[in-house]
Amino acid sequence: MPNSTPPMSGRIVKAPEGHLPADVVESARKARRRFMGRALAFGAGAIGAGASAADAMAAGAGDPAILELPEHSKGLGQPVAATGYGMPSKWERNIQRRQSPGLTQVPQASVSFCPLQSLFGIITPSGLHFERHHQGWWDVDPRRHRLMVNGLVREARVFTMDDLMRLPSVSRIHFIECGANSAMEWANSAVPSVQYTHGMLSCCEFTGVRLSTLLDLCGADVKKGRYVLAEGADGSSMTRTIPMANALDDVIVAWGMNGEMLRPENGYPLRLVAPGIQGVSWVKYLRRLEVGDQPFYTKDEEVHYVDLMPDGSLRQFTSIQECKSVITTPSGAQTLLDRGYYNITGLAWSGRGRIKRVDVSVDGGRNWRTARLEGTPLSKALTRFNIDWTWDGSPAVLQSRALDETGYVQPKINQLRAVRGSRSIYHNNAIQSWLVAETGAVSNVQTY
Amino acid sequence: MPNSTPPMSGRIVKAPEGHLPADVVESARKARRRFMGRALAFGAGAIGAGASAADAMAAGAGDPAILELPEHSKGLGQPVAATGYGMPSKWERNIQRRQSPGLTQVPQASVSFCPLQSLFGIITPSGLHFERHHQGWWDVDPRRHRLMVNGLVREARVFTMDDLMRLPSVSRIHFIECGANSAMEWANSAVPSVQYTHGMLSCCEFTGVRLSTLLDLCGADVKKGRYVLAEGADGSSMTRTIPMANALDDVIVAWGMNGEMLRPENGYPLRLVAPGIQGVSWVKYLRRLEVGDQPFYTKDEEVHYVDLMPDGSLRQFTSIQECKSVITTPSGAQTLLDRGYYNITGLAWSGRGRIKRVDVSVDGGRNWRTARLEGTPLSKALTRFNIDWTWDGSPAVLQSRALDETGYVQPKINQLRAVRGSRSIYHNNAIQSWLVAETGAVSNVQTY
Repeated sequence: MPNSTPPMSGRIVKAPEGHLPADVVESARKARRRFMGRALAFGAGAIGAGASAADAMAAGAGDPAILELPEHSKGLGQPVAATGYGMPSKWERNIQRRQSPGLTQVPQASVSFCPLQSLFGIITPSGLHFERHHQGWWDVDPRRHRLMVNGLVREARVFTMDDLMRLPSVSRIHFIECGANSAMEWANSAVPSVQYTHGMLSCCEFTGVRLSTLLDLCGADVKKGRYVLAEGADGSSMTRTIPMANALDDVIVAWGMNGEMLRPENGYPLRLVAPGIQGVSWVKYLRRLEVGDQPFYTKDEEVHYVDLMPDGSLRQFTSIQECKSVITTPSGAQTLLDRGYYNITGLAWSGRGRIKRVDVSVDGGRNWRTARLEGTPLSKALTRFNIDWTWDGSPAVLQSRALDETGYVQPKINQLRAVRGSRSIYHNNAIQSWLVAETGAVSNVQTY
Repeated sequence: MPNSTPPMSGRIVKAPEGHLPADVVESARKARRRFMGRALAFGAGAIGAGASAADAMAAGAGDPAILELPEHSKGLGQPVAATGYGMPSKWERNIQRRQSPGLTQVPQASVSFCPLQSLFGIITPSGLHFERHHQGWWDVDPRRHRLMVNGLVREARVFTMDDLMRLPSVSRIHFIECGANSAMEWANSAVPSVQYTHGMLSCCEFTGVRLSTLLDLCGADVKKGRYVLAEGADGSSMTRTIPMANALDDVIVAWGMNGEMLRPENGYPLRLVAPGIQGVSWVKYLRRLEVGDQPFYTKDEEVHYVDLMPDGSLRQFTSIQECKSVITTPSGAQTLLDRGYYNITGLAWSGRGRIKRVDVSVDGGRNWRTARLEGTPLSKALTRFNIDWTWDGSPAVLQSRALDETGYVQPKINQLRAVRGSRSIYHNNAIQSWLVAETGAVSNVQTY
């Protein structure tokens, strides 16, 4: 020893995806030379091989502030956290969830939207997970919290958090979407950005005990007991019926979110995770599960979260969030500062399983190309898609269209309206259109 | 309309994993009756079917504080965040990364450990991601940050963050482990908890541009250029050599972590993500990449992060983090409060690819059972494992042993010491043993 040098190979492996085509590389080089000429005032636009970053920065004569090495390259930085919980950079403080002013009468029964336009990948940071409260949020004492299981069970039981957390657990990555996501798009397209059109959407790794394990432990009668009621402990007493088929499939009674305990605004210490089903059924501050032989017809499923149809009737008991997608960059309220290469990226999801394909159009749906899907799509989870685009400076209408493993294709808004009218609030999974103007400004439009 | 009632099936689907065996269910029922008798003072231990949670709580005569509905079931809670970034519950404030007092001379060149014993699943919340700094951390202004690519390239280039973030990006879930993780175990087993034995380990979804895309864009000579130097912008000028084979494979120049921008203490706005390679090579505040025809022999790879062998020589240029695992619950410094069922859970990972199997022993390695792996293991990512265990109250030594897709089996500490002695700091991937005493107290022991 010294032992082996690092393994190595002279063979060039081309990146199997996201590899830039030759003409884009060439044009990017030209553009970059122009850029560097402007911003860093390099004579020839190139730095001699072997030059250091300090040389490069010293060459930045166009900006006096970068003539010298920055303080962080010379001084002693901040100490390691002796204890504590980390926070984002101060430079990112504008990336926040945001309330829509005037959307509701009181902020305790309201929404804060997730800033999808600023996020990457599929995991939503817990600090930016969207919020929807019916009577405000609470930081419930987990030592006093109880979960009761009753109804058509051999023996009703009350569980402490300690009881639950000793049981066999599972961890699964799933999306959660409010049934009212994209609500404003039913009637018009006045909402400016993807944070407000689609921001009642998040995706996390959830950990808990399968509901089926709990029902088994209590001796639930799953022949007569075709439904399960879930009830929350907060003042809204949120109650929703879950079909037993779902309860026995992939529903989780969860305490964990993204590796740590649930956040207070997301139901700490216990919430139902009902994969593929609209967010309102993911009951927060979960305190009771009752097994019954028919739906419980609660206010939250009979009067709320129903769709007003053109003939005045109500579409009730919808639960599955159908296949949907949206482009997050470029998206409404963003501006393209230059022509040339862009990586169009967005999210796709389906309450019925895995995303199979996402197509992207830059001409309002006349032509479509198939996007790259990140990794292996997970069932009932967000899937990130990417596709290369070179913008020539003329107006463009960007759209994405998802297809799930059942073969269902995301519809156009006019297809949805033909059946359901334009007076609904809930369950809008239509294709979203973003108009890129010649100025580069991106806005929310509806294309039929 | 009202249209279809929810889909439903009367058939019982048994949970395919984590299903409790009948005797455990029976004994849990008995234990729970005892518990409820004590804690909630129910007469017969059972609640009539149809009772409400309020009834159940009102029945809790043993504790005056839960005689009434809690405030959060009656009042109006906190408003939705108009703007802001969410934080964990106040009840979880003890779950923090922690420094090891006296480990280093100054807190700017130190470590804070991730609380693995309190985490679920595989995603590490960014606020609890372990820290390792060589000269403190900085919150670098992204508008002024530059990345230079030079050396054996057709043309050296300087990229702004905007330049980089317009390029095709990828998102991947990978573990990062400091080469010095489990360092103290080489000599003894004095470190009390898994936070300190294995807490220089985290796993996140990273987003950025493939290094291969950048090298391609700059016309890197990947025949002569068999190595890439990565250099950080902070005062420590961290520099590490990456073999070109890795550079062209799965290395990412990353700005995103768990859906948002990197945290300052993890290299904001740009770090190298070198999957499977020890953390020191994931250079933070990345400012320069240089292509060269031989290793750069920097101080950080010649003098630091080398292993002192029994004959006094140094083992250099180790980079891959070999296959390893650890049980996180039950683990050191925890106490089992009762006999009976426990879900033993932990993490496994390999720098060479996917985890294929994890075996668990409760008798110090004499007998092994195969654990359940969560989901589909990802390459060079943490994999969560779970296995059922009924503790009979007698002393037990808990161990986990991982096997990766290359067939490599995690070694015992005496196997590692036979080759490498006990004076190393780095690259200890030995099997970890936790002793459960008759009292239920769990401690760190070494078993040969």
